[in-house]
Amino acid sequence: MTSTVPTQVAIVGAGPAGLVLSHLLAESGIDSIIIDQRSRDEIENTIRAGILEQGTVDLLARLPGSRAHTVGMRHDGIELRFDEAGHRIDFPGLTGRSVWLYPQHEALKDLIAARLEAGQDLRFGVTAMAVEDGGTTRPRVVAEHSGGTTLEIEADFVVGADGSHSVVRREISGSHDGLFREYPFAWFGILCEAAPSAPELIYSNSPHGFALISQRSPDVQRMYFQCDPETDPTAMTEDQIWDILQQRVPGVTLVEGPIFQRDVLRFRSFVARELRHGRLTIVGDAAHTVPPTGAKGMNLAVADVILLARALEALLTRSDSTLIDGWADAARDRIWKAQHFSWWMTSMLHTTPDASDFDRERQLGELRSVVESEAGRAYLAEGYTGWPLG
Amino acid sequence: MTSTVPTQVAIVGAGPAGLVLSHLLAESGIDSIIIDQRSRDEIENTIRAGILEQGTVDLLARLPGSRAHTVGMRHDGIELRFDEAGHRIDFPGLTGRSVWLYPQHEALKDLIAARLEAGQDLRFGVTAMAVEDGGTTRPRVVAEHSGGTTLEIEADFVVGADGSHSVVRREISGSHDGLFREYPFAWFGILCEAAPSAPELIYSNSPHGFALISQRSPDVQRMYFQCDPETDPTAMTEDQIWDILQQRVPGVTLVEGPIFQRDVLRFRSFVARELRHGRLTIVGDAAHTVPPTGAKGMNLAVADVILLARALEALLTRSDSTLIDGWADAARDRIWKAQHFSWWMTSMLHTTPDASDFDRERQLGELRSVVESEAGRAYLAEGYTGWPLG
Repeated sequence: MTSTVPTQVAIVGAGPAGLVLSHLLAESGIDSIIIDQRSRDEIENTIRAGILEQGTVDLLARLPGSRAHTVGMRHDGIELRFDEAGHRIDFPGLTGRSVWLYPQHEALKDLIAARLEAGQDLRFGVTAMAVEDGGTTRPRVVAEHSGGTTLEIEADFVVGADGSHSVVRREISGSHDGLFREYPFAWFGILCEAAPSAPELIYSNSPHGFALISQRSPDVQRMYFQCDPETDPTAMTEDQIWDILQQRVPGVTLVEGPIFQRDVLRFRSFVARELRHGRLTIVGDAAHTVPPTGAKGMNLAVADVILLARALEALLTRSDSTLIDGWADAARDRIWKAQHFSWWMTSMLHTTPDASDFDRERQLGELRSVVESEAGRAYLAEGYTGWPLG
Repeated sequence: MTSTVPTQVAIVGAGPAGLVLSHLLAESGIDSIIIDQRSRDEIENTIRAGILEQGTVDLLARLPGSRAHTVGMRHDGIELRFDEAGHRIDFPGLTGRSVWLYPQHEALKDLIAARLEAGQDLRFGVTAMAVEDGGTTRPRVVAEHSGGTTLEIEADFVVGADGSHSVVRREISGSHDGLFREYPFAWFGILCEAAPSAPELIYSNSPHGFALISQRSPDVQRMYFQCDPETDPTAMTEDQIWDILQQRVPGVTLVEGPIFQRDVLRFRSFVARELRHGRLTIVGDAAHTVPPTGAKGMNLAVADVILLARALEALLTRSDSTLIDGWADAARDRIWKAQHFSWWMTSMLHTTPDASDFDRERQLGELRSVVESEAGRAYLAEGYTGWPLG
């Protein structure tokens, strides 16, 4: 049994990109339908990090009921540690902007509630199988309910916000056709019951490898240390984990507590070769992956759809295709700046297995160049807090 | 036949480091003897590049008869080119400082004349063979005149300013004991008779490789393009050379002229593990090598000896060893910042044989991040014009 529903914009994926896009389109009076193969519960309970740029949090805070500014915590800086000393990067002093610590799943709860409250057609448990008539002005998303029935969405535009295994990307440029980089390390991440060890995040370059002392809430902390990608997260005792973490932030005493989650995060960078084909586009993780060091993932997704919403408003309400024709290039400019920023933070802070003594000393020379220079600190702070949207 | 001469500081090498050091020591009333295995004529006629930081040229200009500010040319910026567009880095606007184009051999003529005029004991054609009693308070340099007679210089301190094959380095830490990096490319350099192609230097990242459009004088220009290290400089016609250069600066029309010199410059980075042992130190090329992209070679040599002159003044006139005990660390801090800067300019501007499409796009993302940000431009300009000496 097949049902066909018409809309202006079919959005595949109810992550931050898809939900924010539907909100921005609605502000311009444009209808959309969002489908996601996951359940609402799964989306809202997949714990993910969240450092939001000033521009991202300001946008989220515009949505009715948003807790971004109340539950989220403003961070006015980070600490870079190396050679056993800490160096603060003062974000407002350098850029006039801050970042906000607000986990992505909390932002998703806000977004889903606000969109449903506004009457958004948002369907969970619906899996996109293919896009048809992609080259026409009326493309269709063919999807399957978990029950087995088929749904067709007929739209003026299809947006793939469907993550790294994007079905829409396959229709645009083949599923794996992209620019790719793998890193020879991963992050071992833990969640633990403890108070914060420091007022702000600590990014530490130590001779033993990188560590990030992050936070989640007043009672729960998130910490990471650089590890071999083949590390088995279950193979270590809690004591061993704390020993590694403590060793990597010499001069800081970590507040320890029971570890209730552990995982190993692979590091990869990816950018799809084509972001648009006719009336199909991909955004967010469907279009790009960044390593977590620069905290750019969700922010880049939101930047993609802010630019896209403007372009779709022009196309669908004024038949003006100028912005959509330039959208992929404009998005790509920011994507590659963010890819560079993520690579830079990663390469400046991690040790690599094949690094020579020269590489190691050069890395410390770079860290000193950055922290000793107001321009260097500002250049880093601009990237971290997010470049202005053109 | 051996003659022994006493002095306060024995300086091996009459390059910029040794000559500037002898001048600074003389200003503090400290005697020195300089020896160099080369003839004066050879030193003054080995053509070498020269981009002088503001601090370097200001120091040189203090010497009687210096032509640094008259023959040298002030440059208030450089152009970074990529993606067929040029982006100016405005040095005074960003840092309050400029650089000066003044070839090293011209600076050496000034320095040698000024030092001889001031009565400096400066001996050409004298080759240092060894340093003896290096661990005592009265080390000796054993040297040989070109005629075969032996000269011993007995000093309170011995400074090796004797270049990359330093004899003094061997006495401190073994001749090759250092931190090292090789690059998978070289520069093909030409000198040609032509007017300048542009008012300032152009650093161009093109898909075909790097090119630097530099200058020497109003009638003679210096240009470089990235090449394979095994390239035979004689194997190309002038037309082929101009084709390569023109291709690498799309949008710029080079003024061509007869090419009268061509060479291939290897790219390497090196820092000696030990810069000091008791009353022996090494400075300049004896202590470190940088690739030419950052124009740091001579400037770093001068910075080394400015710090060293202060330390020797304290040690030899006031028996205060605090500064000399901290000298190697202080010098090393600047050396590694300069190594990083040189590596950064090199890696941002050159294509590497094994670069992926990802690497290439990231590199362009980095260049855009730098030129689009005032902080990014200032961070680069600070490194290029030289960090203040502490």
